[in-house]
Amino acid sequence: MNRKISILGSTGSIGQNALKVVDILKGDLEIVYLTAHSNHELLIEQALKYRPKAVNIIDPTSGKIVESKLKNENIEVLIGRASLLEISKRNDIDLVLNALVGTAGMESTLLALKSCVDVALSNKESLVMAGNLVKKIQEKSGSKIFPVDSEHSAIWQCLQGENKEDVNKIILTGSGGPFRNRDISTFSNITADEALKHPNWNMGKKITIDSATMMNKGLEIIEAYWLFDIPIDKIDVVIHPQSIIHSMVEMKDGSVKAQLGIPDMKIPIQYALTYPRHIETDWERLDLVKQKELTFEAPNFERFPCIQLAYASLRQLGTAPAVLNVANEFAVYRFLENSILFTDIPKIVSRACEKHDWIENPSLNDLQNLIIWTKEFVKSFNL
Amino acid sequence: MNRKISILGSTGSIGQNALKVVDILKGDLEIVYLTAHSNHELLIEQALKYRPKAVNIIDPTSGKIVESKLKNENIEVLIGRASLLEISKRNDIDLVLNALVGTAGMESTLLALKSCVDVALSNKESLVMAGNLVKKIQEKSGSKIFPVDSEHSAIWQCLQGENKEDVNKIILTGSGGPFRNRDISTFSNITADEALKHPNWNMGKKITIDSATMMNKGLEIIEAYWLFDIPIDKIDVVIHPQSIIHSMVEMKDGSVKAQLGIPDMKIPIQYALTYPRHIETDWERLDLVKQKELTFEAPNFERFPCIQLAYASLRQLGTAPAVLNVANEFAVYRFLENSILFTDIPKIVSRACEKHDWIENPSLNDLQNLIIWTKEFVKSFNL
Repeated sequence: MNRKISILGSTGSIGQNALKVVDILKGDLEIVYLTAHSNHELLIEQALKYRPKAVNIIDPTSGKIVESKLKNENIEVLIGRASLLEISKRNDIDLVLNALVGTAGMESTLLALKSCVDVALSNKESLVMAGNLVKKIQEKSGSKIFPVDSEHSAIWQCLQGENKEDVNKIILTGSGGPFRNRDISTFSNITADEALKHPNWNMGKKITIDSATMMNKGLEIIEAYWLFDIPIDKIDVVIHPQSIIHSMVEMKDGSVKAQLGIPDMKIPIQYALTYPRHIETDWERLDLVKQKELTFEAPNFERFPCIQLAYASLRQLGTAPAVLNVANEFAVYRFLENSILFTDIPKIVSRACEKHDWIENPSLNDLQNLIIWTKEFVKSFNL
Repeated sequence: MNRKISILGSTGSIGQNALKVVDILKGDLEIVYLTAHSNHELLIEQALKYRPKAVNIIDPTSGKIVESKLKNENIEVLIGRASLLEISKRNDIDLVLNALVGTAGMESTLLALKSCVDVALSNKESLVMAGNLVKKIQEKSGSKIFPVDSEHSAIWQCLQGENKEDVNKIILTGSGGPFRNRDISTFSNITADEALKHPNWNMGKKITIDSATMMNKGLEIIEAYWLFDIPIDKIDVVIHPQSIIHSMVEMKDGSVKAQLGIPDMKIPIQYALTYPRHIETDWERLDLVKQKELTFEAPNFERFPCIQLAYASLRQLGTAPAVLNVANEFAVYRFLENSILFTDIPKIVSRACEKHDWIENPSLNDLQNLIIWTKEFVKSFNL
């Protein structure tokens, strides 16, 4: 395998893990582009190590530093968002890993797919917000999306060699977060500090809160809908606190396939980069004997109303999942700043979904406007 | 799908379950031949319902009854073992389900494969005893084996769409049987009645004892070796008392795939008959929330020496697995007749393996002679 790849967001958690995969698979994966938001130190280090054709950094001040450090290195330095989008279009590579965080990552997915480049997709917003646009582009270009998220990677792995028509349902597993067993009547007292203690995965703050509200599972339901082209009522959620079974597929004959592993993002990242191969690496192995037990519970929708909100937005489609996603993001920020309660997050999201001007087939421009509206709505919302 | 099949051993447990699958998949599966040992009543009933071209029954007295009942039905009636072998050779079908029990079923597998007919294999002895012969024939004819056993079906399902070179190991799960937690010092007191209480699957007496000694897992290790062409040290066993995960495959990147389901043989039987499709049926579904937990333990080889004996026979190959299998069968019969202790089973098996005249590449004739020798050895063995 000699696969030329670009990593958008190479200094973030997914980007750094992807480079660990590249380190171990020397010769199989070749880095052509790296991009970062503002972490110039790490980007420079990565550039000197992996020798890409070009790097991009959004922040202009950081850009100047990168430029001066790399000026004699024969590595092109591109600064600003316009160049990020320009790099996203380049088709002198086999695969783009889109590890950008937030709505800013959406457009890169659309541009890469348009350029007939496959996308290893970590950026949730691309499908949650612009699933309809992604699908339209894919129909024309034939380019594919390889999921990086552990749940969707699990489903994708289970579906290898199977006929799509034989799938009965998809079962997303979720840890249930830190408040799975907490008395619901005390949910309004939950502090940001409490919510940031998440047991299984190492994640950023925003995602950790999403895991506590289980909105992360809601967003994954929306992504699964677009990724696997499956009806809403065929996507189930099961609480599995150990996060060992990453998700499952039930076939029409009752056979269930599951993908398991220790909670280590390097495994799904590697699979997205080396698909369809599982190339030998030495990541820590799952030892079920040491693990002892795997447990399962039904999700309680009273406890986790965000899951229901996500299903509801998917039934509406159009701009509904996009508003849900943006409203959630800014509600989480307000919660992290202690300006709203934990239980206010779903309330604000629900209200934003109700109040926004619904559009059936939003364009990228519609989505950009919607982001502005929703952000403003959440910031100014008084409970 | 219109697949013409024959069922060898249609009146046994696997055969009857296979016909339930045929009932639900009317139009997809067409019965061309049915065979039985001596259950003439059921064979006649099946013949009248499924209208095969021919039926075979081994027992001559039962044969006369079948002959007279079917004489005006335009269904050929063949009697005796020679006709069973003749039916096993016929190639006017797409698939043979070999659900014969014991060493008597071996030859039918070899004959079907020689005739370039694929075999859905439930008969354990075909691979355990004659793995080398099966392989030799398959290399020439190109015909395939589709495993029916739930463990091997699980592995086979997990391997769909994967590259064989990417497999790191196979993990066979086993319930651990009724004596998983019993004090080892009391093992010599185990009675046949106690051993016949097996929690998860409905099985015959011989197989139930094999499950209590875990020799069933030993035989499955040997089958897995031949089915999946994998080195011995890449086949692991994990105790999983709930029998929900039917087995697993660990890939070289650390990703683990598992196949799960309720313990119902109809699911793996159906998959072997309809491969590669999972056609819609209404068998009871796995509900992990209802199941609550799955647990795992390491197998204790002091408690279950039969597993070690099986690994050892596989390291020797040649006639070693065959002697292991036959010695075990007749030791189990002696245990069921209360003529030996539960703990004598592995002792006798081990002694038979040591004492027999080892042959590297046994012919079918060598195996037949070995069966006679081993049977005699076990019957006359004094502890």
